[in-house]
Amino acid sequence: MILYDLELSGNCYKIRLMLAFLGLDYELKSIDFLGGEHKTAAFAVLNPFCEIPVFEDDGLMLRDSQAILIYLARKYGGEAWLPTMPDGLARVMQWLLTAANDLARGPNDARLHDFFGYDLDGDLARKKAHRTLSIIENHLIDKEWLELGRPTIADLACFPYIALSHEGGVSLDGYPAIRLWIARIKALPNFVPMPGLA
Amino acid sequence: MILYDLELSGNCYKIRLMLAFLGLDYELKSIDFLGGEHKTAAFAVLNPFCEIPVFEDDGLMLRDSQAILIYLARKYGGEAWLPTMPDGLARVMQWLLTAANDLARGPNDARLHDFFGYDLDGDLARKKAHRTLSIIENHLIDKEWLELGRPTIADLACFPYIALSHEGGVSLDGYPAIRLWIARIKALPNFVPMPGLA
Repeated sequence: MILYDLELSGNCYKIRLMLAFLGLDYELKSIDFLGGEHKTAAFAVLNPFCEIPVFEDDGLMLRDSQAILIYLARKYGGEAWLPTMPDGLARVMQWLLTAANDLARGPNDARLHDFFGYDLDGDLARKKAHRTLSIIENHLIDKEWLELGRPTIADLACFPYIALSHEGGVSLDGYPAIRLWIARIKALPNFVPMPGLA
Repeated sequence: MILYDLELSGNCYKIRLMLAFLGLDYELKSIDFLGGEHKTAAFAVLNPFCEIPVFEDDGLMLRDSQAILIYLARKYGGEAWLPTMPDGLARVMQWLLTAANDLARGPNDARLHDFFGYDLDGDLARKKAHRTLSIIENHLIDKEWLELGRPTIADLACFPYIALSHEGGVSLDGYPAIRLWIARIKALPNFVPMPGLA
């Protein structure tokens, strides 16, 4: 197994976290993101969308962090991280789409603007971030985990960019249930951190 | 089963299309989107993200069009539209994330700007649209379907906003493989159209 990785990417981190929780060994290939390695023709062979992470397992080449989470959960995690049955599967999937959409356009974009200097509307991203965080706070107010009463890839998909919010100028002070949920994830066996994590 | 729907939404349409392909009966509840019904407190009970579609089945309330596709495929479609095995599952999922991310920020945003008057950067959306369409064109050049050599929810997830591209000022003239793929989808048994479809 090979993970094409950037240490500071929350999307790469969620794969490293999943691999750690599953206790899997893998090779880490660091991509020189700031040097533009992901935009080279050689990298486009791995992923024509020119994005990281990319994950390789036994000849299968996968792009997109949420799709890779799904793959790892189904292949190596039994029913623990992603149920097979339609109801549980779809409940978990809703949050992977929240991660790919609302959190990407919220705290992730705010961090890309503030921390990486991307040409984005940082204030709009922060506004979207707080809207999404408010919904998640409300959802978690009476729950320990996002779905199914246990940790699933729903939590893993949403965790990194929420826990990195402060790097985009988004404070979690007003979200006590989210802060407790972050602490719960960090207390899971085999948890690994990344730089900058709240 | 109830689909909370907007006729002109490509995300709602992909659910109607899936339900048609599966031959399922359901109740359609039209949401007064232009009148802001999705922003009311009553609607937020159905979906706190205040977005359509929302799908209700036997007490289960689901938000997000891709998550609903996954649910319907797994619950009512056997292995046909979404495989259970990790490799095929993840291959299909990659395209659901492409639909939720690249196509949403490309042809969908361009259409929201041109057709619905949203305050978005239409030119940036068109640039993103063509970048994504070029990648998909290249992918489809030697394939009939996006993955697995057969129609799956990968195709259904990506189809609507690609086939509505012209409503956002994005021409498909330069994408012959995509136009053939659109024709293939339209020729599937039980296909249903929506207004404006290419």
